[in-house]
Amino acid sequence: MASPDKAKRGIPSKEDFNLWYPAIVEIADLVDKRYPIKGMDVWKPYGWKAMMLIDGLTRAEMDRTGHEEYNFPLLVPEDLLEKENRLVSLLKKAREEGVDPDELRLDEEEAGFKKEVYWVKHAGENELELPMFLRPTSETPMYTMFPLWVRSHGDLPLKTFQIVNTFRYETKQTRSFIRVREIHFFEAHTAHKDQEGADAQIEEDAVIVQNLLHDLCFPAIVSKRPVWDTFPGAWFSNAVDVVMPNGRTLQVATYHHYKDQWAKAFDLKYEDTEGQSQFCHQTTFGMSERMLGAVVGMHGDDAGLIFPPKIAPIQIVLMPVAQHLDEDVIPSINKIADTLKSAGYRVKVDDRDLRPGAKHYDWEIKGVPLRLELGPRDLKSGQFVLSMRTGGKASHDVDELLNVISDSLDATESELRNRAAVHMEHLVLDFPGIEQSSDGWKLTKPLEDGKVYQLAFDGNDSDAEILEKATGLTFLGDCIDSYNEPQPCAVTGRMTTRKQHLARMY
Amino acid sequence: MASPDKAKRGIPSKEDFNLWYPAIVEIADLVDKRYPIKGMDVWKPYGWKAMMLIDGLTRAEMDRTGHEEYNFPLLVPEDLLEKENRLVSLLKKAREEGVDPDELRLDEEEAGFKKEVYWVKHAGENELELPMFLRPTSETPMYTMFPLWVRSHGDLPLKTFQIVNTFRYETKQTRSFIRVREIHFFEAHTAHKDQEGADAQIEEDAVIVQNLLHDLCFPAIVSKRPVWDTFPGAWFSNAVDVVMPNGRTLQVATYHHYKDQWAKAFDLKYEDTEGQSQFCHQTTFGMSERMLGAVVGMHGDDAGLIFPPKIAPIQIVLMPVAQHLDEDVIPSINKIADTLKSAGYRVKVDDRDLRPGAKHYDWEIKGVPLRLELGPRDLKSGQFVLSMRTGGKASHDVDELLNVISDSLDATESELRNRAAVHMEHLVLDFPGIEQSSDGWKLTKPLEDGKVYQLAFDGNDSDAEILEKATGLTFLGDCIDSYNEPQPCAVTGRMTTRKQHLARMY
Repeated sequence: MASPDKAKRGIPSKEDFNLWYPAIVEIADLVDKRYPIKGMDVWKPYGWKAMMLIDGLTRAEMDRTGHEEYNFPLLVPEDLLEKENRLVSLLKKAREEGVDPDELRLDEEEAGFKKEVYWVKHAGENELELPMFLRPTSETPMYTMFPLWVRSHGDLPLKTFQIVNTFRYETKQTRSFIRVREIHFFEAHTAHKDQEGADAQIEEDAVIVQNLLHDLCFPAIVSKRPVWDTFPGAWFSNAVDVVMPNGRTLQVATYHHYKDQWAKAFDLKYEDTEGQSQFCHQTTFGMSERMLGAVVGMHGDDAGLIFPPKIAPIQIVLMPVAQHLDEDVIPSINKIADTLKSAGYRVKVDDRDLRPGAKHYDWEIKGVPLRLELGPRDLKSGQFVLSMRTGGKASHDVDELLNVISDSLDATESELRNRAAVHMEHLVLDFPGIEQSSDGWKLTKPLEDGKVYQLAFDGNDSDAEILEKATGLTFLGDCIDSYNEPQPCAVTGRMTTRKQHLARMY
Repeated sequence: MASPDKAKRGIPSKEDFNLWYPAIVEIADLVDKRYPIKGMDVWKPYGWKAMMLIDGLTRAEMDRTGHEEYNFPLLVPEDLLEKENRLVSLLKKAREEGVDPDELRLDEEEAGFKKEVYWVKHAGENELELPMFLRPTSETPMYTMFPLWVRSHGDLPLKTFQIVNTFRYETKQTRSFIRVREIHFFEAHTAHKDQEGADAQIEEDAVIVQNLLHDLCFPAIVSKRPVWDTFPGAWFSNAVDVVMPNGRTLQVATYHHYKDQWAKAFDLKYEDTEGQSQFCHQTTFGMSERMLGAVVGMHGDDAGLIFPPKIAPIQIVLMPVAQHLDEDVIPSINKIADTLKSAGYRVKVDDRDLRPGAKHYDWEIKGVPLRLELGPRDLKSGQFVLSMRTGGKASHDVDELLNVISDSLDATESELRNRAAVHMEHLVLDFPGIEQSSDGWKLTKPLEDGKVYQLAFDGNDSDAEILEKATGLTFLGDCIDSYNEPQPCAVTGRMTTRKQHLARMY
């Protein structure tokens, strides 16, 4: 039931996700969209803090896995693209030799990339001799430097990452965190001795993503993208898709196996133990502010955001009750706040002179996991009242403070994971089936709007096209979690354990 | 005495600072300057980590003083500059009314600013309707948004900051950290109810800078810049100059009092307690990667860098001695490393199979404050050997580990502060004097190269010009630390406590 306060703040019902999402990111004060360039929002402190906490989790994973943080220049001289062009030629040649059949696609993507960048052709009052562009991603600037750093097998593996702003000249409709023109971006780039080294990196990336998803409290579908949706120059691309409440999938991470394709283009070689010159094998791994978009979309409700505790800018808000009636409440609540801060929690004391209801709604909207209240009566009984943003309210002994807080944050995480799992169950349905009739392929049952369909599929490109055409949906690719038991392929009927998803992608 | 190892690594003597500085930033692996755009270096992990530690100190100060972190878009539409142009007109009018005589200077600066930016006029294959530029600093984008956020006195003070990349199209010779085209930049922007509020902010900024300088272990000269060197639109600018070993001053921080000048240009108003509309008073505070440049220059020596402990990417390097002779050494050193990590120190175990001398030189170059060695004999006696990068080596009981480390890092800080103070004494000399003769003003004694001169000065602009012409040096402005006792002004002979410095600025 919408309270007058909520109505006043103008939060649409989450049922209408396409209205709710753009409204909540501003109402919860994550960003301000009124900056005069479309698709370039101003990050407000609350949103930026959440993003930095996500970056912190990412950095911890990078540290655990021995990646080192670099920071490369934003501007890329146009002539470095020639190496990328050489890569395309190389792949063309490979196709002619029957190794890689995807040359035409790559050629188109290459042109597409040029279409997507911002160009710097002027500085001061001068026209630059050599135009530069704002990085959309950093293969080109990084792989220009890698050959200077890699000489022998002792220099490998080279495991680098950076967290930077990247730019895309989006022509599609922009959406905060989801489709923006200045992107807060994470990218890891690695170089290895051989294909096995790069294979192992791809496995490590998969674990890193799962660790992050665990902390952010939602599941995702991990798929090996179909060939036609593979990053240009990649041997294969694995993508991580979150199913948003409107049933559209949001790609929040990708990791690509490049084999030695880019190394050949950028002449990235090393001397092996036998003194022979070898090309490196490379991988990349990208994530972005979309991860925060997924957090907003997955966990929020009609009352506002719900932040997973690990990235909540404020984990516990403390409120004095009847503060004017009892002078001891404020010092006591500050003492509790200090205890929590010392234990490493992110807390805020809200002693604004507002009625409690107004405060509650504010922190509900902002998705603070726990609310701790203390009044004169609690003070006498040595207790405090704790409310969870996910529901539930109880009194606890102040002596038990740290245990109660720790348990309640754990409980919040579990509850969010449960809800996200239930949400996935409702959004990801079994594909009803398709059959051939006299006037072509027909679904055996109409599809529901706003759902993702999973199916056994073992067909070829034209079988896939049949399904995409009949459903109006897109293949995410081969799911990493295949079926335990073979199932009949939706088109060919052949038994297969290959699981695929048909979805509408963001 | 230069060892063969040092000669091999090609570190010039620090006596020849203009050779030493550009060499050491690459030899110590802070940056790689081989990126194909001049003045845009690649930050290597060791340099980036040091920079992030400086940012961490800055963020802690921002947190202590109630500033909140934002992140604004990099691109600024050209038409927003119209507001800056209006500011210039406003100041012109002020001059006509006799309030501010510096309009012509501002006009030139305004043109200069346009000369210094990178322009984005194309995206993809399109020419943009409205050109945009890469921020050189963020007054314009920020003050476009501030009026949307400030409504009433309750919204003030607004204390914002961001740490971002900014861009200047430098035409002068570039130098790592000191003069670059992509700048790692800190900028705080505040809005206050009145001039007193902004005055108090300027005082707070002064304390923040002193806290940072304390942690970085060097002193600086703080001056109110002469009017002709004040940031356009500022009422006054205080600047923090570090004296580098070659006697040139490096401006590492500035804080500007804007009064209500920008607020009038950007229509930044609030409703006061009486319901009256008032213009805000504003300040800004800027620092950059130059702070790291100052750390390199101030503390390094012929053997390499010396990092102040608070920003040392590695505070303690641990080395097994004779590791192949005794299998217990490695586990014991790892245990010590774990103890130190748990206590919050940044440590590295160097168990490379190299002779000790080679390892020592590596960590000397990188400026790691402490080196801890453990061999089979130490193991038996329950001791370890600790060497300080600033000099000194002794054995200590393992039982005393944490105390010894804490004391030794403190001692390193003290020693660096002492050295920096001595260094300032040698570099900042009393001005010998100037006298008028038949053929103009003459110095009473020739000046030494590579020195800063302090003097009592109470003259006007043309008196200042006499001094600058005779010395070939530039006034830094009125020093915040004035003389305790009045001294005769170098030109007018009038008694004054105003202290000024003449220097060659970077």
